Amino acid sequence: MVGTVAFDAIETPFGKTDKIIGGSASYITMAASYFHNCQYLVSVVGDDFPRSMISRFQESGIDTKGLQIKAGEKSFFWSGRYHNDMNSRDTLMTDLNVLASFDPIIPESYRYASYLMLGNVDPSLQLKVLDQMAKRPRLVMMDTMNFWMDIALESLTEVLKRVDVLTINDEEARQLSGDYSLVRASRRILEMGPKYLIIKKGEHGALLFHEDKVFFAPALPLEEVFDPTGAGDSFAGGIMGYIAHSGDLTFSNMKRAIIYGSAMASFTVEKFGLQRLLELSRPEINHRINEFIDLVQFDISLS
Amino acid sequence: MVGTVAFDAIETPFGKTDKIIGGSASYITMAASYFHNCQYLVSVVGDDFPRSMISRFQESGIDTKGLQIKAGEKSFFWSGRYHNDMNSRDTLMTDLNVLASFDPIIPESYRYASYLMLGNVDPSLQLKVLDQMAKRPRLVMMDTMNFWMDIALESLTEVLKRVDVLTINDEEARQLSGDYSLVRASRRILEMGPKYLIIKKGEHGALLFHEDKVFFAPALPLEEVFDPTGAGDSFAGGIMGYIAHSGDLTFSNMKRAIIYGSAMASFTVEKFGLQRLLELSRPEINHRINEFIDLVQFDISLS
Repeated sequence: MVGTVAFDAIETPFGKTDKIIGGSASYITMAASYFHNCQYLVSVVGDDFPRSMISRFQESGIDTKGLQIKAGEKSFFWSGRYHNDMNSRDTLMTDLNVLASFDPIIPESYRYASYLMLGNVDPSLQLKVLDQMAKRPRLVMMDTMNFWMDIALESLTEVLKRVDVLTINDEEARQLSGDYSLVRASRRILEMGPKYLIIKKGEHGALLFHEDKVFFAPALPLEEVFDPTGAGDSFAGGIMGYIAHSGDLTFSNMKRAIIYGSAMASFTVEKFGLQRLLELSRPEINHRINEFIDLVQFDISLS
Repeated sequence: MVGTVAFDAIETPFGKTDKIIGGSASYITMAASYFHNCQYLVSVVGDDFPRSMISRFQESGIDTKGLQIKAGEKSFFWSGRYHNDMNSRDTLMTDLNVLASFDPIIPESYRYASYLMLGNVDPSLQLKVLDQMAKRPRLVMMDTMNFWMDIALESLTEVLKRVDVLTINDEEARQLSGDYSLVRASRRILEMGPKYLIIKKGEHGALLFHEDKVFFAPALPLEEVFDPTGAGDSFAGGIMGYIAHSGDLTFSNMKRAIIYGSAMASFTVEKFGLQRLLELSRPEINHRINEFIDLVQFDISLS
């Protein structure tokens, strides 16, 4: 897992936080840890980052040899405020700090990893990571965003050729393909390299495209979305964790993985930040998976 | 079925129509006719309405004794223009014409109907219809919209107490309940009378709430939405037709009905107006139902 480990400060209609732990890699590895107990973390923090959280990663089976700690520097910090509908937010502050000069170095022992998750960072860094792998992983999944489409489309296009799974949201799929129809957009994007495209639609669920097939995973209708931060990353973490655990790269298993990812995202939004992801139990996850089964299960036999 | 039979003129990014046949009752009865071959239509048109369409209704098993034809008057006319995203539209013209003085008269032979669909008309007219029934139908389904919540909330509330199923969209559910969360909104609305609440989310599918249960029916991801007019009505028609055909009012069967309704809506948007609904075949419907099954089917066995 390569991505950010950071501080966030979040305001929602329900309250606000001080600096809490955030970053894509934090959500992704913690969500994945419920399925797979051997992960490698590549990221960078300042020496303001709490040792206790690093220990917490380790307790969850996350190797932190690849987590660079920059003495005298500060960790990446983001703060944002969500609007009442929880679907839009304003960024109040972005302090790149250590991230400005992040050079991902993959420790020797990581270079044979079978599953590689490229979090949402500069595509040129994602390329650097791919180039350091000693062998092509069985599966490479990549997250990105509109920002990189705006300013780094060329290197983004290079990364796309070398990944198996791309996760983006619906607006980003439209921007990347230049097509409003998600069905046509998915065809164009699959021609750019990935074998699987996952289009995230937030509270409206997610679509998985592969060859000429499509699968829809719903979001669980929740009484309250408390804090949407990290939902997309927890979704990706659940997917990667489930795939790494099962070792099965078929379309059927990818569908299962996306349901597990959706379940992890549904937990994350129930509390501020990482809080809910740090306290989950296996029975809770199974119970939630059953809720997803009930949510979409119907029985039609065509005569 | 009580609702409008009308003329529409529609502009979409793909083209525009002259006056074509529209109206909620046209879509609902035609969609339902693929499942149930004995329907009663209560509506009003002017003598400008084509006899050929009335014959077409009759050929589809729709009794038109309750369709009032007002000599020397004009049919209800609506024209609208869809924006590029197909999710929003501007109304260009609304000529109520015969609808302004519509007084729904239920023919004697209709008054024992087992299934009653109250289309989106003035709630005071919906009440008049209910009052004319000789016995309480097994199932009453009602459609309405924000407009009636704004100007006729009191009579709308009266109708709600006397129906089994309410269909509205997500924004209308929020307005009617005063709650942004659809889960909480559904609880409040179910307390107002209906046993089932169906919340339509357009391209994002639909939610069915009943007691403490929830079911999600996806919309089929389409390459092109050609004309969204009548999608919600075709959805309702598919549901009512399927229920009347099966006679089964259980939650499991309501789930099936909503999948059939979603399939009918997915056809309607493929061409302008009623066109697609007039030319469907049973194998096409079965094929589409299979696409819905494939779209959401996954296989997780929890150990």
